[in-house]
Amino acid sequence: MGRPTIADIAQRVGVSKGAVSFALNGRPGVSEATRARILEAAREMNWRPHSAARALGGARADAVGLVIARPASTLGVEPFFAHLLSGLQARLSEQQVAMHLLVVEDAEAEIAVYREWTSAHRVDGFILIDPKVRDPRFAALKELGVPAVVLGGSGGHASLSSVWADDREAMLSVVDYLAALGHRRIAHVAGLPGLRHTQRRMRALRDSVRRLGLVEAVSLPTDFSDAEGAAATRTLLSRGRPSAIVYDSDVMALAGLGVAMEMGVRVPGELSIVAFDDSVLTRVTHPSITSLSRDTVALGGQVAEVMLEVIADPGARRDVKTATPRLVVRRSTAPPGD
Amino acid sequence: MGRPTIADIAQRVGVSKGAVSFALNGRPGVSEATRARILEAAREMNWRPHSAARALGGARADAVGLVIARPASTLGVEPFFAHLLSGLQARLSEQQVAMHLLVVEDAEAEIAVYREWTSAHRVDGFILIDPKVRDPRFAALKELGVPAVVLGGSGGHASLSSVWADDREAMLSVVDYLAALGHRRIAHVAGLPGLRHTQRRMRALRDSVRRLGLVEAVSLPTDFSDAEGAAATRTLLSRGRPSAIVYDSDVMALAGLGVAMEMGVRVPGELSIVAFDDSVLTRVTHPSITSLSRDTVALGGQVAEVMLEVIADPGARRDVKTATPRLVVRRSTAPPGD
Repeated sequence: MGRPTIADIAQRVGVSKGAVSFALNGRPGVSEATRARILEAAREMNWRPHSAARALGGARADAVGLVIARPASTLGVEPFFAHLLSGLQARLSEQQVAMHLLVVEDAEAEIAVYREWTSAHRVDGFILIDPKVRDPRFAALKELGVPAVVLGGSGGHASLSSVWADDREAMLSVVDYLAALGHRRIAHVAGLPGLRHTQRRMRALRDSVRRLGLVEAVSLPTDFSDAEGAAATRTLLSRGRPSAIVYDSDVMALAGLGVAMEMGVRVPGELSIVAFDDSVLTRVTHPSITSLSRDTVALGGQVAEVMLEVIADPGARRDVKTATPRLVVRRSTAPPGD
Repeated sequence: MGRPTIADIAQRVGVSKGAVSFALNGRPGVSEATRARILEAAREMNWRPHSAARALGGARADAVGLVIARPASTLGVEPFFAHLLSGLQARLSEQQVAMHLLVVEDAEAEIAVYREWTSAHRVDGFILIDPKVRDPRFAALKELGVPAVVLGGSGGHASLSSVWADDREAMLSVVDYLAALGHRRIAHVAGLPGLRHTQRRMRALRDSVRRLGLVEAVSLPTDFSDAEGAAATRTLLSRGRPSAIVYDSDVMALAGLGVAMEMGVRVPGELSIVAFDDSVLTRVTHPSITSLSRDTVALGGQVAEVMLEVIADPGARRDVKTATPRLVVRRSTAPPGD
C-alpha cells in the first residue's frame, strides 16, 4: 500500500471521511473519543499531511482559488456563475473556507496566477471551470502538485479530480423529445465553441440527424451573452425558420423569446423554445420555458465537497458524475404548427 | 502608485502579463532577449516577488475581503450580487487584485472574520455591504485600522469610506410617477427590514401619503427571496388590492408578476408593477417591467475604485454619492383601471 489516505483511516476506524478530516485538522465536529481513535489510527498508519505549508509549520490558507478566464461581465449575466458560487460557498463556509476569486484574460494568465498563488500559499487548492478541448491548465496544475478539481468534462485530465455531467445524454434527451413532438428543423444556439461541453452538445445534435430523420440541425456558437443569443435567434428566424430552438443557457433562451415576440413569431405555436439550465428566469416568463434542469447550487456543493476531500487527502483522485440534467416541460414547447 | 505589479512591468516593456510572469519565475516560454528586458525593467521599478515582499513585511495581499452575512443562497438568487461581483472584479482584476469571499451567519461571525483576516494579512481591505440601522461592524473595523469601504448608507460610519445612492429620492420618484398616473393605493414589497436602505424606502413611501393624497401605502418586509416576494403579492392581491406594487428587487417583481398571472390579475390593466434594480430579467418578461435602473456593475466598479484608493492611502476618507437610480418606464405600468 502507498501513502495512507483519509479513506484508509476512515475505513480502519469505521467513521466517515469527513470525521477523519475534522479530527486531523483539529476542527470541531467530532467527539473527543472519536478524535482520539482517529489520531491513534493515523499514527499507526504513519499518515502525514501533504501540504508543504503544514510541513513547514504553516497553517492552511483556508481558501480555495477560482480563476475565471472569461470577461468579468459574464459573472453578472450568467445565473450559472451566481448559482455555482452560491453552492460552493454554502458548503465551504461550513468549514470557514473562503473563495479566492480572480478574473483574468486568458489561460496563460490563469496558469501564471496558479503558480503565484501556489508559491505564496494563498489557497489550499483550485477549482477549474470551462475545460477546453486542448487545455494547457491540466498539465500546469499537475506539475504544481496542488489539489485541484475540474468542473465539467470527464477523464483525461492528467489525473486531476473532476465533477461532470453527461452533456451528450442531456442534449439527446431534448432532441428526442422535440422529434417526438414532430419537429424536424431544430436549431441550437450554443455557447463558446472552444469549450468541451459545447462541443459535446453540438455533436449530440449532429449525431441525431440520421437517427431521427431531421431535415435541419444547425448549431450557432455564441459567447453566452443575451446579446449574441438574441442576434442568433434573429438570424435563425429570418432564414430557414426552424420550428424549435435549443439554447445553451437560460439567459439566451429568454433573449430568444424576446426576439420571437418582437418578430411576431408565436411561442410555442410557431416556435418551440428549450433552455439549458433552469433558473427562476425560465419559470416566471410567459410562456414559461421548457428547460433542462440541473441544480447548479447543488453542483457547486458537490464540487466544494470534492475540493475539501482532495485538500484533506491530496493523494486521492475523485471522478464524480453528477445527475444528468432532467427535462422540465413547461409552456414553450408544443408540436410544430400547433 | 503602489507596489509595481506584473501588469505595470508588462506595460512598460510592451509584452503580455503572462510573458512577464514566465520571465520573473525563471520559466521557459519567453526568449532570452525578452527575459533580459523584463528583468531589467523589474529591477528599475523595484519589483519584488510576493514571497520576498511578504517576508519583508508590510506587503500587499493583493486581495480584498467581502464577507456576506446572508444565506449563501442569496448569492444565487439576487442578480444584485452577481452584478456587484462582476463590477468589482472588472476593476480589481486590472490590478490583479482578487476577491476573498466568505459567507457567514451573522454580524458577530463577520467581525470575527475581519479580525482573523486582518491579523493573518489575508486581505488589504474590506468591502462592507448591507449596512444596518445599528451596525457593530463599523466600530470593529475602525478599531482594526484596516482600509474599508461601506456600500450603501451614508455618513455616520465612524469615518469609514462609503459609496452610496439616494434611496429616498429614488423611492420618491417612483411614488410620484405612480401618483401622477392616478394610483392612490400603492403597496411596497420591501427587503430585509433591518437594512438602512430598506428603512429609507419605507419611510419615503410613508412620507408621501399626505403629500400625494394616497389612500393606502403599505410596506411588507421580506427576506428578498422570490418565495417571500410571491407570498407578499398573494397577501396584497387577496386583501385591499392595491393598484400598484413597488418591489425592492427585480427577482421579487418577477415573482409578483407570476402571482398576478396565476390569480388572473391583468398587468398593467388591473395592477401596475415597478421593480427596484434593473437587470435582463425586467426587460425580457411579458409585459416588460418598469424599473428603477441603476448600473450595479458600474456601482461595483466605483466601490472597487474607492477601495483601491483607500488601500493606497489609508489616511484617506472618501464619501461617494452615486447616481440616483433612474426610472425606466416599460409595459408594466399604466393608469389604474386602464
